[in-house]
Amino acid sequence: MALVPDNTLLTPTVEDGRALALKIARLTIKAIQPDEATRELLRPGYATDPDSLTAAAHVVAIEFATIAAANDYWRAERS
Amino acid sequence: MALVPDNTLLTPTVEDGRALALKIARLTIKAIQPDEATRELLRPGYATDPDSLTAAAHVVAIEFATIAAANDYWRAERS
Amino acid sequence: MALVPDNTLLTPTVEDGRALALKIARLTIKAIQPDEATRELLRPGYATDPDSLTAAAHVVAIEFATIAAANDYWRAERS
Amino acid sequence: MALVPDNTLLTPTVEDGRALALKIARLTIKAIQPDEATRELLRPGYATDPDSLTAAAHVVAIEFATIAAANDYWRAERS
Amino acid sequence: MALVPDNTLLTPTVEDGRALALKIARLTIKAIQPDEATRELLRPGYATDPDSLTAAAHVVAIEFATIAAANDYWRAERS
Amino acid sequence: MALVPDNTLLTPTVEDGRALALKIARLTIKAIQPDEATRELLRPGYATDPDSLTAAAHVVAIEFATIAAANDYWRAERS
Repeated sequence: MALVPDNTLLTPTVEDGRALALKIARLTIKAIQPDEATRELLRPGYATDPDSLTAAAHVVAIEFATIAAANDYWRAERS
Repeated sequence: MALVPDNTLLTPTVEDGRALALKIARLTIKAIQPDEATRELLRPGYATDPDSLTAAAHVVAIEFATIAAANDYWRAERS
Repeated sequence: MALVPDNTLLTPTVEDGRALALKIARLTIKAIQPDEATRELLRPGYATDPDSLTAAAHVVAIEFATIAAANDYWRAERS
Repeated sequence: MALVPDNTLLTPTVEDGRALALKIARLTIKAIQPDEATRELLRPGYATDPDSLTAAAHVVAIEFATIAAANDYWRAERS
Repeated sequence: MALVPDNTLLTPTVEDGRALALKIARLTIKAIQPDEATRELLRPGYATDPDSLTAAAHVVAIEFATIAAANDYWRAERS
Repeated sequence: MALVPDNTLLTPTVEDGRALALKIARLTIKAIQPDEATRELLRPGYATDPDSLTAAAHVVAIEFATIAAANDYWRAERS
């Protein structure tokens, strides 16, 4: 199973970088709990608990920080 | 759905950068829990729990760190 | 409402930078829960729970990391 | 017991870097709780608790940030 | 009340930097909960709860990261 | 009591850096809860709670990030 789609942190745009952060976070969960049925079972409780949602957003924020640095914050697109 | 408004991390001022951090954090929650009715249902409990508020502020702090670095801390405006 | 006082991360001293970190963290909470009466209601429980205090200090630490980097750790004052 | 496989943070690809992050996180748990039987006992509860999974993904995200910086985000492979 | 002793992040040694991280973390708690009697009341429960101790160590780790960067990791002492 | 063994963040190898991260994290707990008997009492509960283990691994990850940066990710050994 791939942990990082296309095996790169580089993305054309900020939006793509953000989507990659979400994707990478989910793939980590998948790597730790590979059973899809279990993951599906956990989803309803998780997705309706505000603290669980905040914790997930926290992980995405950290993954995004790495991806943003890798892309030099997509500054080149502006210059 | 857009994850990053205007597809950029660059903002004219610090204040705008902070507002973007809040916005990005909310858009992540929206991406994980896309159902608006559910999000609205969770809000009262969440917004009256100090630990939930602190956890949300924590995520904003991390998003802001990335945005601030992207804008080179808005130093150019001062020089 | 302002999210960053004076719209800058730059402060004359480390102490001012630390005070700004505390201020910014509080302004984020205010942005998420704008009702002052509610915030006042939550304060007693929050301020007497050691884990809540640690979580708040955690957020301040992260905000301060950003502010310190923005000010190049106030190194210029020493040279 | 080794805490870092091959005693290096450098990996040929992003995917390998991500796998290393997962590995390092697990080796830390192993260093803190060296008894394998205990770790196995804890796994079912842990792997079916969404907040535990998110917390684990959080640690992986931080380890990966370090590994990604060590590898200069694997940028050289693209140029 | 001072939030940063001596109003500087610069310390002669790593050990001093670590002590400063502990000190700064405590001064933040003091700023949020200024009543000493309350803080003393909370201490026994807090200091015997492993998760509270870990959370406190977490904050110290983040404060130290900032202090270490400010001191360029005290590399100059070695060269 | 020393907070940082040998008063340096510099280590010859990645493995040593990782061991230092574990050591520093433990010394912080020791500084906050200096009573060894209390710490020993807390250990069984802590070491059999997966979330406590993850939280500890989280702190180690952050300490290691600082140590890795201090050592420039041990890149010089490879060149």
